[in-house]
Amino acid sequence: MEINKENITEWLKNLQDNICKALESEDGLAKFKEENWTREEGGGGRSRVIENGNVIEKGGVMFSAVSGKTPDFLFKEKEHSVSGKSHQDTTFFATGVSIVIHPQSPLVPIIHMNIRYFEMSNGTKWLGGGINLTPHYIVDEDATFFHTQLKNVCDKHHSSYYPKFKTWADDYFFINHRKETRGIGGIFFDRLNENEHLNFEQNFAFWQDVGEAFAPTYVALMNKNKSKLFTQDQKQWQLLRRGRYVEFNLVYDKGTKFGLETNGRIESVLMSLPTNASWIYDFKTKENSPEAITLSKLKKGVNWI
Amino acid sequence: MEINKENITEWLKNLQDNICKALESEDGLAKFKEENWTREEGGGGRSRVIENGNVIEKGGVMFSAVSGKTPDFLFKEKEHSVSGKSHQDTTFFATGVSIVIHPQSPLVPIIHMNIRYFEMSNGTKWLGGGINLTPHYIVDEDATFFHTQLKNVCDKHHSSYYPKFKTWADDYFFINHRKETRGIGGIFFDRLNENEHLNFEQNFAFWQDVGEAFAPTYVALMNKNKSKLFTQDQKQWQLLRRGRYVEFNLVYDKGTKFGLETNGRIESVLMSLPTNASWIYDFKTKENSPEAITLSKLKKGVNWI
Repeated sequence: MEINKENITEWLKNLQDNICKALESEDGLAKFKEENWTREEGGGGRSRVIENGNVIEKGGVMFSAVSGKTPDFLFKEKEHSVSGKSHQDTTFFATGVSIVIHPQSPLVPIIHMNIRYFEMSNGTKWLGGGINLTPHYIVDEDATFFHTQLKNVCDKHHSSYYPKFKTWADDYFFINHRKETRGIGGIFFDRLNENEHLNFEQNFAFWQDVGEAFAPTYVALMNKNKSKLFTQDQKQWQLLRRGRYVEFNLVYDKGTKFGLETNGRIESVLMSLPTNASWIYDFKTKENSPEAITLSKLKKGVNWI
Repeated sequence: MEINKENITEWLKNLQDNICKALESEDGLAKFKEENWTREEGGGGRSRVIENGNVIEKGGVMFSAVSGKTPDFLFKEKEHSVSGKSHQDTTFFATGVSIVIHPQSPLVPIIHMNIRYFEMSNGTKWLGGGINLTPHYIVDEDATFFHTQLKNVCDKHHSSYYPKFKTWADDYFFINHRKETRGIGGIFFDRLNENEHLNFEQNFAFWQDVGEAFAPTYVALMNKNKSKLFTQDQKQWQLLRRGRYVEFNLVYDKGTKFGLETNGRIESVLMSLPTNASWIYDFKTKENSPEAITLSKLKKGVNWI
């Protein structure tokens, strides 16, 4: 396909469709509800939310494509500045698919995926995205499977991508005030255009493969774990881990901050928060318990493969 | 009493004692657990946490007194800068009592109180504090009682204080991304030293009265509402309101941000978060329901008296 706004938009909507179908099929009970919304300044989105399923307690697969005058604040942060190209009086176009799934069972991991495309009328354009996993209990076998899937996607395009983007995810999904990673990470990348390895078209193909890797990877993890029995104590632990998830998203997550500060559609922005979460004062895990072992593995730089 | 570090510290610890006794007595079941902690750079605190009571689900009455080299970041924010006095190579001392109480019943309001004293070795000193109420359901009679109590404390010292500090609370306890106040407000003030109305000693007396107003005011609200029966739907609404409380504290609250960014004692900093909270995608209240009426009153500038 020719890489332009219209085709990218179509491709993303089609991806959203396919992912929703795959998740509904594995869940077996709940169906996504769709809402179409428009943004006053330009563009809009197609939100799909699923609740109270067999496997999924709350999940969203959100598509959006927005445009307008490039806001100044995009250029306050160093990471958004594009050297040599002025953004004065430019317009922008941004489109993407964002996913968060909170499962019912503490034995099924939370997953997050996002792929996004950004361009300005001055010719600047970039790709961003990633997939990362937040197991309530870390199962080494599942962690290895998950990271292997991502590594395969990366390796198909360039051998430097998995180590680089894996480290990026470790650094990004870090709850600094807890000194814990949010989960076992995954891959994360931003402002990908052309680089010393691949041209833009090749990076675009990589980006598409990331999007397409989501459904088979997560469905496999749902399928493997969804029927396992769990205890009330495990459910309580899940609620505490969800508390950490809330802490990360409200305190650190750039997408959430961006949405809150720019009058984004609040229900879409905060869709990532779980149905319920818990905080117990000074909660301590029992020595050598599965909870303690999980905590001990929430570190940067673990080689899961 | 002579106003100095030692006496203020003693007075605050005594206030903490009295408040804990009053809350335990009205709760009738749970007892505060105490933890003493020290801070590497200087000072420490006495945390008191109560959980799983008859009336209180989770609450903290936290005393701290910390000191050390004045950190630069205190002077990055305009509000902390003190004109004309250099903070270079100064030391600081800060002490206060902070309270958050999350009740079991949705018919008993959440309350927050904080009073704090700050001084530097260059002679700068100020007082700050406030009390504010977050009812899950707004009851006009209780709101009037609460604000009248605060107005009485203020009026005893200066007639300008209640309107000024009430507006300050409205502005501060505002969840901007929801366009809702966190509750019915109360009073809030900061950097109080001497002003056109009162000298420092007189403001100190006001500040002490704010601290002493907490226990009788909240105990009256606990007592009036603690035995009322509530439904599961009301409990669910409470969890959603607690979700808003979490949003405010993690996204906007300066004390929380300060704690997270300065490697504060995390369990104390996040003590304000409820045992559990909930988020439902795009939740809508029923027209003219008590929930809808409460939402409609979460506005700035309401005259509750």
